[in-house]
Amino acid sequence: MAQGLQQDVAGFAGSQVAITGGLGFIGSALAARLVALGAKVLLIDSLAPNYGGNLFNIASIRDRVEVAILDIRETQRLKPLLEGCDHLFNLAGQTSHLDSMHDPVTDLEINSLAQLTLLEACRAICPGATIVFASTRQIYGRPLYLPVDEKHPLHPVDVNGINKMAGEAYHTLYHEVYGLKATSLRLTNTYGPRMRIKDARQTFVGVWLRAVLEGKPFEVWGGAQKRDFTYVDDAVEAFLLAALAPETKGKVFNLGGEAPVSLSELAALLVAANGGGRYLNHEFPAERRRIDIGDYFADDRLFRSVTGWEPRVTLADGLARSLAYFRDHLVHYV
Amino acid sequence: MAQGLQQDVAGFAGSQVAITGGLGFIGSALAARLVALGAKVLLIDSLAPNYGGNLFNIASIRDRVEVAILDIRETQRLKPLLEGCDHLFNLAGQTSHLDSMHDPVTDLEINSLAQLTLLEACRAICPGATIVFASTRQIYGRPLYLPVDEKHPLHPVDVNGINKMAGEAYHTLYHEVYGLKATSLRLTNTYGPRMRIKDARQTFVGVWLRAVLEGKPFEVWGGAQKRDFTYVDDAVEAFLLAALAPETKGKVFNLGGEAPVSLSELAALLVAANGGGRYLNHEFPAERRRIDIGDYFADDRLFRSVTGWEPRVTLADGLARSLAYFRDHLVHYV
Repeated sequence: MAQGLQQDVAGFAGSQVAITGGLGFIGSALAARLVALGAKVLLIDSLAPNYGGNLFNIASIRDRVEVAILDIRETQRLKPLLEGCDHLFNLAGQTSHLDSMHDPVTDLEINSLAQLTLLEACRAICPGATIVFASTRQIYGRPLYLPVDEKHPLHPVDVNGINKMAGEAYHTLYHEVYGLKATSLRLTNTYGPRMRIKDARQTFVGVWLRAVLEGKPFEVWGGAQKRDFTYVDDAVEAFLLAALAPETKGKVFNLGGEAPVSLSELAALLVAANGGGRYLNHEFPAERRRIDIGDYFADDRLFRSVTGWEPRVTLADGLARSLAYFRDHLVHYV
Repeated sequence: MAQGLQQDVAGFAGSQVAITGGLGFIGSALAARLVALGAKVLLIDSLAPNYGGNLFNIASIRDRVEVAILDIRETQRLKPLLEGCDHLFNLAGQTSHLDSMHDPVTDLEINSLAQLTLLEACRAICPGATIVFASTRQIYGRPLYLPVDEKHPLHPVDVNGINKMAGEAYHTLYHEVYGLKATSLRLTNTYGPRMRIKDARQTFVGVWLRAVLEGKPFEVWGGAQKRDFTYVDDAVEAFLLAALAPETKGKVFNLGGEAPVSLSELAALLVAANGGGRYLNHEFPAERRRIDIGDYFADDRLFRSVTGWEPRVTLADGLARSLAYFRDHLVHYV
């Protein structure tokens, strides 16, 4: 299988690729990989302060990519950038659940409206491009059964989940009605180098990493909740395979990782990977409890069977790599 | 049961009621019923030309209702109108499937964004009000089984369906997170006096009614598709019961009607009710086929069991009443 995958992603050499949210956590890792594969890469990012965009994320590839500082809501500026695009990785999004409750309209504008105008632009400018959309497990809400497969009902528990559900549905619809080659990946907790660690806007893992590196205790809310985690390099491979595999078009797929662990187990793994650290168990804050989803882990067998994808980086190894990266570059992320 | 229902809706006497889309088809019928029940009624409507609003719809109750000509997207003007509101019937919407494909952003603004800002306004101004939202069967897409119950997966086949799905989901969420007393009714083809007959923006039934009244042949696309129909007075009763029944809050319900009929059967019923008329069978136009849902009829037993609702007007009788109304008032609707 590994040999097969290598051949597959070689198909990006010379192709023109655009990444929305390209200065963000997953977007920048995807960019680095695509540059190595010989693609011509354009990164589109708003660099809005509360999101994941960070110019330092592309320090090592800065002279080998094009960068457009642009909010994807700015349709007229966006359109010309899509000319000649072969592959669009659509990762721009507002990811904070709490922010979506405090400012629901901004969440709608980015996660729903801007996705619709982006797809309209693709229809007009690059109708043959493949599109891979970063969706989220958040649209399932509290799982009715585990592991959660793609047939699980959608019942979002926050405004973010509703708007992401709509954003994903536009992608599927534009395949069905207009033939756009769109695929959605419903991501779970993705972690690794370059993630936002300033606050919990991407996942709580970010603030945990920061705390152990700064020698402070981190807070574990609850602890028994089970979750699954995808290391960023594995997520990047999934995006590449989703773009190239023909059987993915018009479809949605869960992306998971290794076997799920409880948050307490994760905390212990992190402390071990760091060679030290402390954490405090806390009650769940009331405001978050109302929109928390409890246990979640994905059944991602459909995606594995269609693309041959499998996670390669263990949680222990991924945490160690993340700590090593942020230890060297902490000043750029806090 | 009939006795029980009468007692229930008597609860509107003296209460303050707002209806968005209040000059439209169902909204104006609801207004007339609420006026008769002794409610203080405020109608909010944009009177936008392509939608269902029509001042003639309230000719008989014009001096017994308040009217605010206002687009629900205008949040700052909307807010003060909600002060003291006991019941909000939220019927403002863009209903045309084709319009939603040609102008997806406007559909999003009305069916999704404006619903979110309206709920935010309710949270701030009238958090204790009951809210009944006019949702649609369109969010199910092409049925996987029949009749369609509320557990059927949501797979909208047009932009309108996606935006209505989001609009409905906000209502459910705002109940779950903030305790707003919101209920959604997923309507099927609703028909009757005061519907839009100028074009097919509300349902194809409108253009059929107009054609037979004008002595012209109407077009039946396909003909074998089965659908269910709700007469407007029955729909009005459902909205009233949904507002008053305590077990409806935070929930979504299908609303259907009598046993489903094929479009060919409906055409024959319409010609019979009119005492004459002609229709032509046509192939389905390509543009519409891509977003058509085929057979649909609702399993609405959940709503019936919770509220005691049942349809009272047969299709033959409803068509006759509709023809009688439009025969007298055609000039105001074409």
